[in-house]
Amino acid sequence: MSDPFSFHLLKTDSVARRGEIVTPHGRVQTPAFMPVGTQATVKGLLPEAVAATGAEIVLGNTYHLMLRPGAERIAALGGLHAFMHWPLPILTDSGGFQVMSLSALRRLEEHGVTFRSHLDGAVVELTPERAIEIQALLGADISMQLDECLKLPANREEIARAMQLSLRWAERSRRAFEDVRAGRALFGIVQGGDDFTLRAESAKALTDIGFDGYAIGGLAVGEPQDVMLKIVAETAPMLPADRPRYLMGVGTPDDLLQAVARGIDMFDCVLPTRNGRHGMAFTRYGAINLGNARHANDKRPLDEQSAHPAARTYSRAYLHHLTKANEMLGAVLLSTINLAYYQALMTGMREAIAAGRFADFQAATKEGWERGDPATL
Amino acid sequence: MSDPFSFHLLKTDSVARRGEIVTPHGRVQTPAFMPVGTQATVKGLLPEAVAATGAEIVLGNTYHLMLRPGAERIAALGGLHAFMHWPLPILTDSGGFQVMSLSALRRLEEHGVTFRSHLDGAVVELTPERAIEIQALLGADISMQLDECLKLPANREEIARAMQLSLRWAERSRRAFEDVRAGRALFGIVQGGDDFTLRAESAKALTDIGFDGYAIGGLAVGEPQDVMLKIVAETAPMLPADRPRYLMGVGTPDDLLQAVARGIDMFDCVLPTRNGRHGMAFTRYGAINLGNARHANDKRPLDEQSAHPAARTYSRAYLHHLTKANEMLGAVLLSTINLAYYQALMTGMREAIAAGRFADFQAATKEGWERGDPATL
Repeated sequence: MSDPFSFHLLKTDSVARRGEIVTPHGRVQTPAFMPVGTQATVKGLLPEAVAATGAEIVLGNTYHLMLRPGAERIAALGGLHAFMHWPLPILTDSGGFQVMSLSALRRLEEHGVTFRSHLDGAVVELTPERAIEIQALLGADISMQLDECLKLPANREEIARAMQLSLRWAERSRRAFEDVRAGRALFGIVQGGDDFTLRAESAKALTDIGFDGYAIGGLAVGEPQDVMLKIVAETAPMLPADRPRYLMGVGTPDDLLQAVARGIDMFDCVLPTRNGRHGMAFTRYGAINLGNARHANDKRPLDEQSAHPAARTYSRAYLHHLTKANEMLGAVLLSTINLAYYQALMTGMREAIAAGRFADFQAATKEGWERGDPATL
Repeated sequence: MSDPFSFHLLKTDSVARRGEIVTPHGRVQTPAFMPVGTQATVKGLLPEAVAATGAEIVLGNTYHLMLRPGAERIAALGGLHAFMHWPLPILTDSGGFQVMSLSALRRLEEHGVTFRSHLDGAVVELTPERAIEIQALLGADISMQLDECLKLPANREEIARAMQLSLRWAERSRRAFEDVRAGRALFGIVQGGDDFTLRAESAKALTDIGFDGYAIGGLAVGEPQDVMLKIVAETAPMLPADRPRYLMGVGTPDDLLQAVARGIDMFDCVLPTRNGRHGMAFTRYGAINLGNARHANDKRPLDEQSAHPAARTYSRAYLHHLTKANEMLGAVLLSTINLAYYQALMTGMREAIAAGRFADFQAATKEGWERGDPATL
């Protein structure tokens, strides 16, 4: 618990950025991908296995943790880092997104949101102040403001209303955060749907309030990729260059590549672990469905050139077998392999930006995906 | 693939035996516990994690592997060791036990058993010769003869009939094994239910045929522990002292302790992994149900004195949380912790026998279990 939060922009290559985030639990090289540890665990993986994929920070979900085992309980047990035995930085979301997607009977008001727990039906209230308090109890290195996140498409009035509410909550979050700062960081969240004017208004108002970093929220919620990338391209330049920019809940390897090209520094997504649990591998050759019968007799590993042993060691035939047999080890191995691929992709992007050849890296990476999986034996 | 199979009895302490099995894939210190890798994986665990618990040999299930992915396929992929990336010894069962417990429409005849696969309903025949062939295709270091295993209680006539059939199958298995020996071992299986005369007849006939090791089958199939231990105590001395003795499908930590005291060298059981998947830990203090609310705020690890980091690192509160949240990592950690405890128990027994103080070790171990889990904070 030494260094307070800071961000250092080390290099730019056109719009792409190479930076470093300093937190009380260590440094994070950006662009960075954060594996999702929803319920105080990246599903199926030992924390040292998560770190061995190259991850330097994980995300925890406030909504899940506040309901079970409870924020006060985790605080009494020494905080989320100690609880899940993850000594590196943690970012927590505010809980707002999952209240909207998982809970029943939610009622949104100026004061906050009241909902029924999806676990036991208990009535729970989440306000901007409580979201900050919970994240402080968890001991997050980076906290997020409570916001209202709509699904797209939505009409402009509704998007404007949610964005304005999120701004008022941003102010309240910022005030509440003063009491718990302790070297930690709070990020504001730009809302405004697919409307440039609303995004610009949100970005400007948040910058005026002043945050340690800025997220772009309300994307990857049903809109096509080109819409998402357009909003990212328009929004990122409106954010302070000396603060990290975090695109929430994104995405596929191609999303990451394209968003970094548009100035994003941080990502989180369940895709590598969720798809891994369903037999899909992300590789240099694109996505591979291990459930497909063509792998049944294939002795080759997924990627002999991978830096991670799991991708070099186990045959496609074995991964196919584990997937078909619904064996836990299949989920474990493919989650590991996918997280390692995501981290290798981020490492590749960081090195390319540092060397001023990001465009080349982007083209070569896409070429690999498009060439596709080399034919079976 | 250097040394052929052999067994060396190193020391006896009363009836308890300390020995060493040599196989083409390495040595196994006995008494030994074999984790069960049903479908070419010890559920949820990387092979190196299984080895890190202290396991020197695992068991593979012929029934499951012959149906999926198929013995011929595994052979074409380089054998079971390469397929599951487990370089140490493997024992495979004959498939008979699971045909009886898992498949539908089975028809038992002198020639063998015909059944419908529980996976796709395909009609499959398993004969003593085919069971040997499959195990050779898998590349097992130790193969088991096909036998007929009844549930207890059963009437004496039925037990006698099944035992006699198993003996005829033992002879056929032994003949078939001559073609595939290749430095490997074949074990015969003593049947005869809870009847001493039948067990004696089976043991004598098997010894006359001559096997590399002898299993006691048809126990842990519904009978009380004292019945099982009585049969073990009566049967073990009838088996050749210079061959390993394997008590199939057993058992609880107390079963292992008591069976070693009666001259058994090898065990396999799903208990440490299956119960681990359901929130139960085996410890020096006896079995602990992590789902119990009393662990919710308990910062202590399961066993600070464990040789395995998983038992020393994660709090009971965290294991409780993972169990309640049905998180895969809970199954992974508790399976690991349980296998490590089983192996520590075997190590303790081996050291005690070597030092001629097995009775003391047995008493001290039972005292620990009976003292129970120290009270929560």
